[in-house]
Amino acid sequence: MSHGAGGKATHKLIESLLLPALDNPALAPLSDAAILPHGDARLALTTDSYVVRPLVFPGGSIGELAVNGTVNDLAVSGATPIGLSAALIVEEGLDTEILAREVGAMGRAAERAGVPVATGDTKVVERGKGDGLYVITTGIGIVDPGLNLSSSSVRPGDRILCSGTLGDHGAAILIARGDLELEAEVPSDTRPLTPLVDALKGVAGPGLRFMRDPTRGGAGTVLNELARDSGYSVALWEERIPIRDVVNGACEILGMDPLYVANEGKLLAVVDPGRADAALEALRAVEGGGEASIIGEVREEPARMVLMHTQFGGTRMIDMLVGDPLPRIC
Amino acid sequence: MSHGAGGKATHKLIESLLLPALDNPALAPLSDAAILPHGDARLALTTDSYVVRPLVFPGGSIGELAVNGTVNDLAVSGATPIGLSAALIVEEGLDTEILAREVGAMGRAAERAGVPVATGDTKVVERGKGDGLYVITTGIGIVDPGLNLSSSSVRPGDRILCSGTLGDHGAAILIARGDLELEAEVPSDTRPLTPLVDALKGVAGPGLRFMRDPTRGGAGTVLNELARDSGYSVALWEERIPIRDVVNGACEILGMDPLYVANEGKLLAVVDPGRADAALEALRAVEGGGEASIIGEVREEPARMVLMHTQFGGTRMIDMLVGDPLPRIC
Repeated sequence: MSHGAGGKATHKLIESLLLPALDNPALAPLSDAAILPHGDARLALTTDSYVVRPLVFPGGSIGELAVNGTVNDLAVSGATPIGLSAALIVEEGLDTEILAREVGAMGRAAERAGVPVATGDTKVVERGKGDGLYVITTGIGIVDPGLNLSSSSVRPGDRILCSGTLGDHGAAILIARGDLELEAEVPSDTRPLTPLVDALKGVAGPGLRFMRDPTRGGAGTVLNELARDSGYSVALWEERIPIRDVVNGACEILGMDPLYVANEGKLLAVVDPGRADAALEALRAVEGGGEASIIGEVREEPARMVLMHTQFGGTRMIDMLVGDPLPRIC
Repeated sequence: MSHGAGGKATHKLIESLLLPALDNPALAPLSDAAILPHGDARLALTTDSYVVRPLVFPGGSIGELAVNGTVNDLAVSGATPIGLSAALIVEEGLDTEILAREVGAMGRAAERAGVPVATGDTKVVERGKGDGLYVITTGIGIVDPGLNLSSSSVRPGDRILCSGTLGDHGAAILIARGDLELEAEVPSDTRPLTPLVDALKGVAGPGLRFMRDPTRGGAGTVLNELARDSGYSVALWEERIPIRDVVNGACEILGMDPLYVANEGKLLAVVDPGRADAALEALRAVEGGGEASIIGEVREEPARMVLMHTQFGGTRMIDMLVGDPLPRIC
């Protein structure tokens, strides 16, 4: 199970098996979306399977999640979405009302994000060969020609911004499954990131160096990838990382670090230090960005490592996650 | 099960549930690929889930099928593929050798078709929540600006060409499953249609009116859609329709009409009558087109119907398929 959950085991599987067989220049960077040159333009292409359990959870459902997730992978790649495809794998016996509800949720999410679901496919598998409904969305977008988002654009001194509280989606799913004896309810943060990305582009322009949405594997995984790929160090300030008390509580019960818990409506951005305060203000002015924070900075040393400066004055290393305690979170 | 198999039940599901919820101009034509305008260019987008059982069958396997199928949906839309995405839903416990083999098959098929697998996603689901491996491929292509392929481009007198024997893929799967007591083996016809499409474009140019690859639901379904959408009649000549004896035999045992059996390496094309013979010759000169045939023509009447002129001088109506006796064929 750990192979599909987004941590070190997924990386090993991808790197040992998939990359050599499918080797090509577009695939190599392993970012959220592949960039395909087309004439003077750059097209972004991204795909994700959604196998979340349960299908409906506080704050959202599989259909909404599948559209937002793919829109967000395009948005953090600096691309404006122009079309989505949706494939449904339906388990025999699924109530058609559930199917209708999720297709409706997809339609509303696509309308909110301003992008058409342009094509689709439906397959039905026998009882016991699926789990109700799996949704696979793919998106195409056009990359903003003024942006060059990449871990290789990042420089020491750059600030790391987070658009809001971390771990909400993962905690929402966990609590919705009833695995925890918690009275509290956490809503998933699923939402389109397009307005937040537009706000950042507007104030930071080319000072916007790198963006990712910390979904499976959470912020810890994204920041480790950034440190590894840029060759620099990522320093985090624990007291500035926004995490809800109930999410912290749920993670403590499970012995998990909320930094590795999935988000579905948050972005991490690396911004030129001269534009960081303006970028923070811009994020906070947009719906879904009210709790944005500057959570860290890029440093020269120690190379390729993520270090957390704790509230008590210590430091601890944030390593790449091995496995993942939360399968089927998205 | 019949809802996912490509016949009338699929149509009803799509039309009653999916179209109203996802309504937009790109989705409406329900062809193999959606066309998205981008500047002066037209982008084609297509997606398909592959849930074929067994994973390996004579002549191919799920990985090869998934790449060829998406390449073919672009090719028959008149588009040159520029990038594919691949999502894998893996059931816990799947042998990694099988996964490696299928990823290898995808890589080779993509190389053969000259298109990169540019991005991907892997999810693992628990035992009993999948069936080994599901593969979902999506493709983008650039539509040839000289083509206007559409059921509304079709005119009475146009000839209907078929690139080879019908029903091979469906029969191959059926026999591979051991559902039939047949000694014979039929190889699936899975292959990229790009060379056949290029040959047709070369000789027919704008005289090429319409193309489709008759996958789920077979040639019978494609020709019914053509008759319905064009408002004309489709006349078929039974003795000119190429079908292998063993496929005819398998279909007879099952009480099925091979016209409704899936193909994965065949195309149907509607061509201006003045270019039909040249188009036939061009198809026959390409690998995979040796048994191409002019199987029928478009007529004014009876509107929106497909009529088969049998070898014995009679006629019978070829209706839209209700349900499909072959689920999980692709």
